[in-house]
Amino acid sequence: MPALPDSVKSLAESYRNRRVMITGGMGFIGSNLAHLLVSCGAEILVVDALLPNYGGNPANLVGTEGRLAISQADQRDRAAIDELVRGQEVIFNLAGSVSHLDSMKDPVTDLEVNSLAQVILLEAARAHAPDATIVFASTRQIYGRPDYLPVDELHPIRPVDVNGVNKMSGEAFHTLYHQVYGQKTVSLRLTNTYGPRMRIKDARQTFLGIWLRRALENGPIEVWGGEQRRDLLYVEDAAEAFLLAGSVPGLIGGVYNIGGGPSITLDALAERVIAAAGSGRAEHHVFPPERKRIDIGDYFADDRKFRTASGWSPRVDLDAGLARSVAYYRERMSDYI
Amino acid sequence: MPALPDSVKSLAESYRNRRVMITGGMGFIGSNLAHLLVSCGAEILVVDALLPNYGGNPANLVGTEGRLAISQADQRDRAAIDELVRGQEVIFNLAGSVSHLDSMKDPVTDLEVNSLAQVILLEAARAHAPDATIVFASTRQIYGRPDYLPVDELHPIRPVDVNGVNKMSGEAFHTLYHQVYGQKTVSLRLTNTYGPRMRIKDARQTFLGIWLRRALENGPIEVWGGEQRRDLLYVEDAAEAFLLAGSVPGLIGGVYNIGGGPSITLDALAERVIAAAGSGRAEHHVFPPERKRIDIGDYFADDRKFRTASGWSPRVDLDAGLARSVAYYRERMSDYI
Repeated sequence: MPALPDSVKSLAESYRNRRVMITGGMGFIGSNLAHLLVSCGAEILVVDALLPNYGGNPANLVGTEGRLAISQADQRDRAAIDELVRGQEVIFNLAGSVSHLDSMKDPVTDLEVNSLAQVILLEAARAHAPDATIVFASTRQIYGRPDYLPVDELHPIRPVDVNGVNKMSGEAFHTLYHQVYGQKTVSLRLTNTYGPRMRIKDARQTFLGIWLRRALENGPIEVWGGEQRRDLLYVEDAAEAFLLAGSVPGLIGGVYNIGGGPSITLDALAERVIAAAGSGRAEHHVFPPERKRIDIGDYFADDRKFRTASGWSPRVDLDAGLARSVAYYRERMSDYI
Repeated sequence: MPALPDSVKSLAESYRNRRVMITGGMGFIGSNLAHLLVSCGAEILVVDALLPNYGGNPANLVGTEGRLAISQADQRDRAAIDELVRGQEVIFNLAGSVSHLDSMKDPVTDLEVNSLAQVILLEAARAHAPDATIVFASTRQIYGRPDYLPVDELHPIRPVDVNGVNKMSGEAFHTLYHQVYGQKTVSLRLTNTYGPRMRIKDARQTFLGIWLRRALENGPIEVWGGEQRRDLLYVEDAAEAFLLAGSVPGLIGGVYNIGGGPSITLDALAERVIAAAGSGRAEHHVFPPERKRIDIGDYFADDRKFRTASGWSPRVDLDAGLARSVAYYRERMSDYI
């Protein structure tokens, strides 16, 4: 169990004995949130379909045994979700996929998991938990190639892959159900997030996962392009943003960027990963035309709207976050590969 | 068979003997397009699932017998669509629903018909008709309540109902498949369209349908609000915009507003409908709170982007369009109620 950060202690009070549900709760961010909520003393239900090739991994919940309930339900299953949402006070809605390649190969499944499943959750909550606060994990990917930097929430939405279209639509349903039915929804458009419990088998969830694994195995990190800038968010900071989104009434109905630390080029990031691991090497590649077409160039977030409204700011800087990630995977590599 | 308008005669040449498919081809706009394409001498395949309560009506194709092929396939059926798209040169993709109420009552079906079905069509075309031009019927409804008037294509997309979210997503797939795979897609965001072959049983397709029916039956036209302004597009003008979109190479990959004549308040429009019918009366209603919440106020389009690129402009003014509609339904009311 991680020690509860000081600034979260005040948050903890608001979750003590509250009934919270986490969809995708065995996934990367969902499981980190589950660990934090255990520390808060919440009454937790983790829902995760454990679909193959997604982020769900039972190993992510090691250490929470006996302190939360788990249901392996699929969010596309309306009857199951109807039962599970009953009585929930806060629903952290993180189930879904963020894989570019999978969404292009199987757009129908991507649509079901990222768009249809959100309608089903919202309808179930409308019927059986109309007062629940619902926090949706959206993504910076829906902006596509930025017109300007940093990107704020007024930037046009212009997804560059099937996953982006379906995430856009999943988020739009949350906003709509607030406007039409008064459900208490909040959407967080996360930037690239990394840290313990991310998928490191491949690049399906985040390129940083496979980078870290390669570095730890003293292998090559593939850097495509390299000059693109990104802001990186440590997962505990992301989880804290979710806790705030689920408890600060003034945030309800809104859509917020969640950024990270100062932006950094991918080339520089690769060096920092290699330094943290003490092994690995960077291997530079030029984008082939079919990848260039969907490359979005630089992205970093203007997240002042959320910072101002919630008091949140990221606390774990890149080197500290990478060091913690390296320590985590050194100890538990076999659970993740 | 309607006489081919002069300005369409030059278009006719480009469709002679071309293989075209119309999804939703027994629906309101799709069937008008089918009639025009018959005049052009195209080789036409109409695909329509004839779902109950949608716009599909076999009576819409009276007069085209023996001059087009018909398949009652459902666009959600990938295997069927795979077969049907083979060899098509232009696909007019109009299948879908535009009912606000149905989408709120059954959001899952709305998602399947308006979002999933578009992915299936695009995937089928990618595999079996990669060079086909695909013209998608999008809608002004995805803009939601306008920030400014007239509304151009740069206006934020902010749907106010489930149908709007799914139409937004259906359109986004068309744009995406052009960007990623080079498919020749064009999307037309239609304003309120009216005319012969529209659904007049109820307000599912357009409020003007039920208004016209009530006027013809010398009954009350329900006007909610009344001060809201709209631009109205006569269906033959809409169909001509589709023909251009399917044949002018410079339009490919774009998204275009299609507006109508000068904007008019609903109050004034009701009077024009009553005058055209020579019967009926307006009944004024104040919006109840739940409808007020989703009312979008005024809408009229800035469609200069399409006019400039295609040379199109609407040719049938409101009084002429209403007169033709009245004449059509007077003669064939029994096919539509």
